[in-house]
Amino acid sequence: MGRRERRGSQTRERLFRSAMNLFRERGFHNTTVEDITNAADVGKGTFFNYFPSKEHILGVLGEVQGAKYDQAATLARAQQTRDALHWLYHALPSETGSSPKMVRSLFTVFLTSEAVRDFLTLGLATGRGKLQEMFQQGQNRGEIPGHTKAEDLALRFQQSLFGSMFLWTLQKPAPPLDAWLDEGFDFFWSGVTAAANRSKP
Amino acid sequence: MGRRERRGSQTRERLFRSAMNLFRERGFHNTTVEDITNAADVGKGTFFNYFPSKEHILGVLGEVQGAKYDQAATLARAQQTRDALHWLYHALPSETGSSPKMVRSLFTVFLTSEAVRDFLTLGLATGRGKLQEMFQQGQNRGEIPGHTKAEDLALRFQQSLFGSMFLWTLQKPAPPLDAWLDEGFDFFWSGVTAAANRSKP
Repeated sequence: MGRRERRGSQTRERLFRSAMNLFRERGFHNTTVEDITNAADVGKGTFFNYFPSKEHILGVLGEVQGAKYDQAATLARAQQTRDALHWLYHALPSETGSSPKMVRSLFTVFLTSEAVRDFLTLGLATGRGKLQEMFQQGQNRGEIPGHTKAEDLALRFQQSLFGSMFLWTLQKPAPPLDAWLDEGFDFFWSGVTAAANRSKP
Repeated sequence: MGRRERRGSQTRERLFRSAMNLFRERGFHNTTVEDITNAADVGKGTFFNYFPSKEHILGVLGEVQGAKYDQAATLARAQQTRDALHWLYHALPSETGSSPKMVRSLFTVFLTSEAVRDFLTLGLATGRGKLQEMFQQGQNRGEIPGHTKAEDLALRFQQSLFGSMFLWTLQKPAPPLDAWLDEGFDFFWSGVTAAANRSKP
């Protein structure tokens, strides 16, 4: 990368970080593009050199989340599947879960904007592909019983994490997120490693 | 109940059902009080004899959901804990999950209105109290291993169901809800009945 590209990439990153800070403090809908450019200390027009709209900031978030799935897959090759997935369960909400308001605000955008939702749906499917590989590898290595398809376990991982975050935003006061996620993951993992699916009557 | 009270109760019920139908078709935010009174075939002013605001319709939903928790507790006294909870897992979203749009719309109201959210938080805590009794009873009867506190299992039930519904609204096209919930419940139950919590490293 030349100096010019590097500077462009830094500006894009700064706009993203400033936007995420504002979303955390005020929520997505109460943050304007001008708020973001003021916080990032660039001219308002600069924003549109990098992002067609405020919603597109969430596209960067999608890249950031995608990179975490990749990182977990790398971890899972060298470590226990459980440890890599435990890391990912905490890493995925590390920006988005920085405050209950932030979580609520992002969930609201997902629920109300079809364009953003389509993007999320796609990102989650890609993420599930990575998870499936990790679960499959764990089953091949004998760490995880094989009675549940790796594909289904991938879906349960996302279900558990979304449920965990949604319920977290409804607690008053919000409990410390790390301990909350640990408990959610522990229960998830006891389902993954259950000796057999005993749920069928 | 006299005739007058009976009629009042019927009108309140009709307003509630009409509102829920409209929320399902258009979403909560796109439904006006006048839409509801037109659909229920009563004068607009009548609405405010029963509900101070559109948000208060969701208070009735809270009563409806609370009654389902009670019904599940009754079932659990005569049947296996699993069967009563399986019934509840399907019964709770039977109105609210009638369409992906309905789910998204209600989630959005929970996330954006603090008054509604406070109400939901309270309702969920009451529901968890009922769940805790059911899990405790299941542990006492030897149907469920005792290594996880009944109180924690109650929270996991709600986490699993919220996660299930949230992820359902992100699938394109939305899969049939009954089968989707069955799979979510099966995984939940395999965690509940896991021989021991094997998740700790």
